[in-house]
Amino acid sequence: MYTREILNPVTLSAMASSIILSSPKPLSINPTTSRSQRLSIAFSINPARNPTLKPLTFSLSTTSPVKPHFSSIICSAKSRARPEYIPNRIPDPNYVRVFDTTLRDGEQSPGATMTSAEKLVIARQLSRLGVDIIEAGFPASSPDDLDAVRSIAIDVGNNPVGYDGHIPVICGLSRCNKRDIDAAWEAVKHAKRPRIHTFIATSEIHMQHKLRKTKEEVVAIAREMVAYARSLGCPDVEFSPEDAGRSDREFLFHILEEVIKAGATTLNIPDTVGYNLPGEFANLIADIKKNTKGIENAIISTHCQNDLGLATANTLGGVSAGARQVEVTINGIGERAGNASLEEVVLTIKCRQNEMGGVYTGINTQQIMMSSKMVQEHSGLIVQPHKAIVGANAFAHESGIHQDGMLKYKGTYEIISPEDIGLFRSNEYGIVLGKLSGRHAVKNKLIELGYDISEKEFEDFFKRYKEVAEKKKRVTDEDIEALLSDEIFQPKVIWSLGEIQVTCGTLGLSTATVKLIALDGEEKIACSVGTGPVDAAYKAIDSIIQVPTVLTEYSMNSVTQGIDAIATTRVVIGGDSSITPKHTLDGVTFNRTFSGSGAAMDIVVSSVRAYLSALNKMLCFVTVVKVTRESSEGSKTYQNIEQTSE
Amino acid sequence: MYTREILNPVTLSAMASSIILSSPKPLSINPTTSRSQRLSIAFSINPARNPTLKPLTFSLSTTSPVKPHFSSIICSAKSRARPEYIPNRIPDPNYVRVFDTTLRDGEQSPGATMTSAEKLVIARQLSRLGVDIIEAGFPASSPDDLDAVRSIAIDVGNNPVGYDGHIPVICGLSRCNKRDIDAAWEAVKHAKRPRIHTFIATSEIHMQHKLRKTKEEVVAIAREMVAYARSLGCPDVEFSPEDAGRSDREFLFHILEEVIKAGATTLNIPDTVGYNLPGEFANLIADIKKNTKGIENAIISTHCQNDLGLATANTLGGVSAGARQVEVTINGIGERAGNASLEEVVLTIKCRQNEMGGVYTGINTQQIMMSSKMVQEHSGLIVQPHKAIVGANAFAHESGIHQDGMLKYKGTYEIISPEDIGLFRSNEYGIVLGKLSGRHAVKNKLIELGYDISEKEFEDFFKRYKEVAEKKKRVTDEDIEALLSDEIFQPKVIWSLGEIQVTCGTLGLSTATVKLIALDGEEKIACSVGTGPVDAAYKAIDSIIQVPTVLTEYSMNSVTQGIDAIATTRVVIGGDSSITPKHTLDGVTFNRTFSGSGAAMDIVVSSVRAYLSALNKMLCFVTVVKVTRESSEGSKTYQNIEQTSE
Repeated sequence: MYTREILNPVTLSAMASSIILSSPKPLSINPTTSRSQRLSIAFSINPARNPTLKPLTFSLSTTSPVKPHFSSIICSAKSRARPEYIPNRIPDPNYVRVFDTTLRDGEQSPGATMTSAEKLVIARQLSRLGVDIIEAGFPASSPDDLDAVRSIAIDVGNNPVGYDGHIPVICGLSRCNKRDIDAAWEAVKHAKRPRIHTFIATSEIHMQHKLRKTKEEVVAIAREMVAYARSLGCPDVEFSPEDAGRSDREFLFHILEEVIKAGATTLNIPDTVGYNLPGEFANLIADIKKNTKGIENAIISTHCQNDLGLATANTLGGVSAGARQVEVTINGIGERAGNASLEEVVLTIKCRQNEMGGVYTGINTQQIMMSSKMVQEHSGLIVQPHKAIVGANAFAHESGIHQDGMLKYKGTYEIISPEDIGLFRSNEYGIVLGKLSGRHAVKNKLIELGYDISEKEFEDFFKRYKEVAEKKKRVTDEDIEALLSDEIFQPKVIWSLGEIQVTCGTLGLSTATVKLIALDGEEKIACSVGTGPVDAAYKAIDSIIQVPTVLTEYSMNSVTQGIDAIATTRVVIGGDSSITPKHTLDGVTFNRTFSGSGAAMDIVVSSVRAYLSALNKMLCFVTVVKVTRESSEGSKTYQNIEQTSE
Repeated sequence: MYTREILNPVTLSAMASSIILSSPKPLSINPTTSRSQRLSIAFSINPARNPTLKPLTFSLSTTSPVKPHFSSIICSAKSRARPEYIPNRIPDPNYVRVFDTTLRDGEQSPGATMTSAEKLVIARQLSRLGVDIIEAGFPASSPDDLDAVRSIAIDVGNNPVGYDGHIPVICGLSRCNKRDIDAAWEAVKHAKRPRIHTFIATSEIHMQHKLRKTKEEVVAIAREMVAYARSLGCPDVEFSPEDAGRSDREFLFHILEEVIKAGATTLNIPDTVGYNLPGEFANLIADIKKNTKGIENAIISTHCQNDLGLATANTLGGVSAGARQVEVTINGIGERAGNASLEEVVLTIKCRQNEMGGVYTGINTQQIMMSSKMVQEHSGLIVQPHKAIVGANAFAHESGIHQDGMLKYKGTYEIISPEDIGLFRSNEYGIVLGKLSGRHAVKNKLIELGYDISEKEFEDFFKRYKEVAEKKKRVTDEDIEALLSDEIFQPKVIWSLGEIQVTCGTLGLSTATVKLIALDGEEKIACSVGTGPVDAAYKAIDSIIQVPTVLTEYSMNSVTQGIDAIATTRVVIGGDSSITPKHTLDGVTFNRTFSGSGAAMDIVVSSVRAYLSALNKMLCFVTVVKVTRESSEGSKTYQNIEQTSE
């Protein structure tokens, strides 16, 4: 399990005394700084666990004038080649496709609304992670979403990444109607491998109460809409019978058979309410495989909600019964209790491959931690410390007994090594930045961390970086990521923070004075008292911006240890009902909430940045939707959306 | 599933228009305020889901001069009577015992160290929740832990609660040696139903590397120690073969057979490394049931770790294969990725009872939310928003599609109603406190919320309450719980906060002035500058207290919506190595960390309170351990521990 192929012929000096690596021949490192120059090397050789392994000696040789640094070592673990992508068939029967729906189902979580820029950054990371299909959004739901999916299709859907030059499929969700399918196609058609995913409810309870349609009507709609999607030129169409877990079995076989005939390439079986037990769900998949005519011409997929905490087990049950696509999200985020989590499903398949009949995925597990952190940062859904695989405690031990066991023999408790998921502590590896570090060093660090930002963005970032470095001995990777996400991945700035000054404590009234700068450069100053410094500062901001908001969530975490750490604040706000936008297509009120994050060493400043970030996001969204609604009074809905989103 | 028996003959006015309840005869409510006077009534009748149910009309009649309030309605859902407790046999073959190890395995999580007072409060809540067995701690691990387990045995282990006058078993963990077992017995013997839980590793990897013993030696130790525990007078002994999931099957049957002969009443099968797949674990339990001689004279138990996210599924697999005790924790907390979570296991059994062969538990599910919140508060392990059952989003819907479905028919997405787990919004029910509320109203509210505090504690609390009520229109239940936990459930106060005054912002240096009051009343004042207000304040505190600490975690959450909410801060600190205590028994260094929480409307004040709380906890612990180590130079270890902990 711990043997890796060395994929790039690279030699490098040992990063830690216990880890010493070899390579057949020296590598010339290109002095340019493009992302593709990140080194992929074999890594997870842990002498403590493989005591018989002989250490090999190495040296780093490079033709580059830039001295290479390795703050985080990314390993490309390629146990087997990824089979060729054919929509309705997988050449290797043991290969399980990973369909990531973090950007669609995950974004449906309250407060997880992300900007297009944030979605693009996550999609790039998902591509590095090696997911087979990225469900990038639900284009018909809003012009914003259409725009985000299109950007991802154009960028991530055409750029090969990783050791195998893999390009993921870009998928858009749609209900079973032409307008939704048109919107989805408009968004995904730019990708090298586009996919449309359409769904309709098939359980009695849903057909009767939500759709108000008969079984025959539902089958007819599904058939027609799958055929319609294919007729647009989309070679890859996924169909989901919503609430399949509670649907009549015979009816399910029938509708699946019909959509296969109509051209569906993947059949996704959701356990929409998270109601199934693992054995039941496996039986459902096995039944479908056995009884659906033409099923050999399509891929069976699982989509399990986590309402009873069984999503991962149900997904694995589905795989054992013949499913060869798993729909998952990073950190298991999603509506209500979320979905099966990518990291749990993928690592179980990896660790228990033999017991599961030899199945495998194309995921580069060493990218899991980076993906998890990025999704936490942008969705605002912070995982609990005891979250399996990616939680802060997943590899930590407290009790004396286990510590004792750990000392005596590391293998007694750990079954996955931290290195397997790309968890390296920046304190241990690579260069550490400080206040003397110049532009060049900081830029190199960003590239190492996988960020590729523009010159203008870098200058803004560098200014903030210097402020922090002035105050802090050592600027860690986490500090840098917090600042980056605060500075770069913000919505369009309508109001920015000039200055703030606060007095508070137990002795008197908290008072805040805030200076904000509008888009046109106009400065406005207001002061307010409050029950605490944040209350005072937010009230001062409200008195300048004058948009009714409700703060629904507020949380703060320090990103590194120590009291001089950077604090990241996350807030979620909602507008009042008068500015709540309506759904572009069906006019249903759309209670979106907006999250914002801010980072600073001062918790009050951090709180203010977060609030402004959320306000800006809300103001943008309201503006866009208002424009669309006004200009789409005629019939050219999609044209208008396109214009709006440019 | 939604029919409940009305257990107490109580009539009461409708709490919400849609929920109207009946009762055969009026109840006289006792005017005293003891906890046992909480009303237990039938509740979860949801007309939307039971449209044929006829509403019944009611009125509240009481002989009490105190007007009863119902801010949160606690339902005692007793679908079936709990069978009589016999250690090694359950009269009803479908009854599954719930063994809660939140206070033992859960407390092993980094930073989750709790004070004895906190543990007692949680144990009382576990008793109300209806768990069959409370594993209260690991008495041999420290004098603190022995003391906590003993307090729980004396209090919770003797007081009947709930509709059925249930008294939980109080259990203490011990390794397989006489000193551990003596300590466990010393702690649990005061309970009406004491249990000792002893364990030894049985997998090759553990026996060889951790224990350095042969199979024969391990069997001999297990047999002797189980017999020893019985010989002390303990009628109920649980035995765990640690790492059973990786143990040789034949050896496992053998050791289990031997410990049953020696008097073990429950055999707990742990999947220590969270490595098993649900089918595998079910096979393990089925194999043990089939092949272990004498197994009909003991209860089989499951204990599943969650490293791959499969703990709940594995536990359920175990139940389906014949296990009749499940070891779980509230919120699934525990070392690394934690344990199977009580709420997931219990609600799956409840919702899918028919599919699981009719099994049931004695848990009062309406106490789940209260238990979850309390454990989050005291352990510092906040669950993620998408945590199944108890996460903030578990019952929330964001997307337009689902909202539409929800409006049309509520049953389309929810399978568990919020009422099933005791989730009621305080804004919707019961009295709301404000600044005009007097002592009487506030005290009644505390009783409704289940808190029973002393007069002195109430006066301290009431002072803080008035401060908050002065500033805030409406004081919610959550606000009150945050204040209570800040004020009442603190460690022994060595240093308390006098005053604090802070200036910060983007314009200048953050400066904090802090006045602390020592145990003897001496006041000390210090000021410091820092990178932010918290850094400055903590540095000022450090300069007064002068104990080296490392801040390892810092987080903050607002407890209610709105910017005038109370913020709760949680910090985790560690001491430097010179004051790190050693394990009482084996001298292994014991890297415990200490969490503290603080609540205030001012985030800086809240942060300072949290830091002081953690510092006080650490200072107490260091003092206690130092005393023990000095006084136990002789051989009377346990006597000394007793003296120390009094």
